[in-house]
Amino acid sequence: MPETTDPVDLTAALVRCQTVTPAEGGALHMLGEMLAAAGFRVHRADRNGTPNLVARWGNEGPVLGFNGHTDVVPTGDPSAWRHDPFGGQISQGRLWGRGSADMKSGVAAFVAAAIDFVAATPPNGSILITITGDEEGTGTDGTPAILEWMRDNGDRMDHCLVGEPTCPTRMGEMMKIGRRGSMTATLVAYGKQGHTAYPDRAQNPLPGLVRLLDRLASKTLDRGTDHFGPSTLAITTIDVGNPASNVIPAEARARVNIRFNDAHTGQSLSDWIEEEADIVAKEAGIGIAAGFEISGESFVTEPGPFVELVAKAVEAETGVRPELSTSGGTSDARFIKDHCPVVEFGLVGATMHQTDEHVEVEHIVQLKGIYSRIIRDYFAG
Amino acid sequence: MPETTDPVDLTAALVRCQTVTPAEGGALHMLGEMLAAAGFRVHRADRNGTPNLVARWGNEGPVLGFNGHTDVVPTGDPSAWRHDPFGGQISQGRLWGRGSADMKSGVAAFVAAAIDFVAATPPNGSILITITGDEEGTGTDGTPAILEWMRDNGDRMDHCLVGEPTCPTRMGEMMKIGRRGSMTATLVAYGKQGHTAYPDRAQNPLPGLVRLLDRLASKTLDRGTDHFGPSTLAITTIDVGNPASNVIPAEARARVNIRFNDAHTGQSLSDWIEEEADIVAKEAGIGIAAGFEISGESFVTEPGPFVELVAKAVEAETGVRPELSTSGGTSDARFIKDHCPVVEFGLVGATMHQTDEHVEVEHIVQLKGIYSRIIRDYFAG
Ligand SMILES: [Zn+2]
Ligand SMILES: [Zn+2]
Repeated sequence: MPETTDPVDLTAALVRCQTVTPAEGGALHMLGEMLAAAGFRVHRADRNGTPNLVARWGNEGPVLGFNGHTDVVPTGDPSAWRHDPFGGQISQGRLWGRGSADMKSGVAAFVAAAIDFVAATPPNGSILITITGDEEGTGTDGTPAILEWMRDNGDRMDHCLVGEPTCPTRMGEMMKIGRRGSMTATLVAYGKQGHTAYPDRAQNPLPGLVRLLDRLASKTLDRGTDHFGPSTLAITTIDVGNPASNVIPAEARARVNIRFNDAHTGQSLSDWIEEEADIVAKEAGIGIAAGFEISGESFVTEPGPFVELVAKAVEAETGVRPELSTSGGTSDARFIKDHCPVVEFGLVGATMHQTDEHVEVEHIVQLKGIYSRIIRDYFAG
Repeated sequence: MPETTDPVDLTAALVRCQTVTPAEGGALHMLGEMLAAAGFRVHRADRNGTPNLVARWGNEGPVLGFNGHTDVVPTGDPSAWRHDPFGGQISQGRLWGRGSADMKSGVAAFVAAAIDFVAATPPNGSILITITGDEEGTGTDGTPAILEWMRDNGDRMDHCLVGEPTCPTRMGEMMKIGRRGSMTATLVAYGKQGHTAYPDRAQNPLPGLVRLLDRLASKTLDRGTDHFGPSTLAITTIDVGNPASNVIPAEARARVNIRFNDAHTGQSLSDWIEEEADIVAKEAGIGIAAGFEISGESFVTEPGPFVELVAKAVEAETGVRPELSTSGGTSDARFIKDHCPVVEFGLVGATMHQTDEHVEVEHIVQLKGIYSRIIRDYFAG
């Protein structure tokens, strides 16, 4: 079966699209034309200026979904790059540019695999390709808008594969079957300003705040669960901005970020922090207000036939059995998990978001091979 | 014995001199002319642009010294004042203006008392008046420069009275026989920046810093000593300035200010903080650097004949026995205590450094009476 769509050329063409969030940069337009030409029904599910693409081949179930994004983070100073960040140049066996790892290569690989597969072996089921132009920004009108569009139009996926880079350093070594949740708490401690020579007349909010932060940072949240490492809490900032060494400040602010596993929820952690804040505020005779932003709950796609199918495909093509991981940051899988079982596999992401982002050209070819095998096995099963 | 110098007029004239540190504003010039006319030998001991006045009457011992300052802190928004801050207006029995309490009234009262006393009863000894134009600023070239000038010129005081306002709310209720020391420690905690999703690859300096600050703020430094209340420690600021909720910062800074009694020295407290910082830094696997600024050691003029003489004069003139206190901030007494026994007494300082600073007119008159009695009793004794 001759492969007719070159995923390396397609990655380079996508890197040449200027798609710093939320710019479309021609990327979804190009992909839509290719997919339409291959017989996919192509829709744009744009919302509030965020470009989104939904392309479906077939009418029946089962429906295998792919998800990815074409937007990229800013380049920083372009003159600090060895190659034009939007040049898509190939040199030393590598393809260079912003988004080459995260994740235009992943999009190119699954689009190429899907187009070639339906051309050669029309599957007994459907392939549904979903690509957003906002994963790196707030994401509000990206994959969530696609999923709403699908619901409104009676479309659904039975399983979904997200093509984010998942391998730390070696091709095939890791896939993700879940993600930790993330929540940020903002703590504001209130007291009464005064002079350090007369502390009785003031109410310093800082001793209580450092006591609270010490209690939060010292707590062992858990020791890990079946599929997750231990949850972690990081104090990210404390700010008072008091230049006078003889003045007790009236107010102080701090922020903590928690990456949490399935032993917790955003709500259980908010409750815990509020309880601790209340205890310390009472002890210290100050006020402490806590605000919470939960950017995603933890989730896991339990190992089973679909996870095993993806893992086996990776092993067959790379010779490496992928670790089933839930490590790292968040991704759009946190939205898809409410729709259907979702796993993530992609190439090596070591340089993502950095100057001189690049991928190994042979990894792009390998990735298309892995996605092709997943499609084949999925519809064979 | 008719009193010829009106301390209220003199206070008003001094308030009309614009003497925001380090401006001389004509104040020391005016005082120098008055004192010279009264038979004092007047010298200017200016240093690095700071105006300083030394005026001596008599050649023999004993030498009773007075110390004060004519500089004032800024007015803030003058339109927020009920009366011109440099107007020296009298209204409702009060004299209004910046420096009326701190401490142009004190200077006016001891200058008037000294001039009238030497005119009426040439004392068997000397009176030495020292007035600086920088007590509110760094003070580096103020009273220390006066004391150096005196050493270089063979002048010395046997006892000194500083005319700072010492009464919290009621005339006569408090004199100061010492002051606590003050030291500021700046703590810088160093780690390694990273992403909150990968805390193992970073080294957050904040858990260690809050642990250290909690240990410092929780410590009972002492329970007070014979003449002092307990020492106090205030965390005054903590600053990171990290806007990103998913970034672990590399560095954090904090400052603490300690007001300490004679159970400690600046050195003993610096040593304690450095030990605590080392313990916590080792535990937390981070670096913590500590820097110290000691703005004054604690000191006390033990109760004895001179303290008793001043206390009795206050009681005789006001009917109130003054508390012998060591409370409050620092003053130039911290420099004079290395030269001779020093105590502080002045009127009510409740409005000092504030908008609408003012004093009761009758308190200025009473203060001159107290200083006159002190001079009389000193040379009678
Ligand atoms: Zn991505
Ligand atoms: Zn003063």
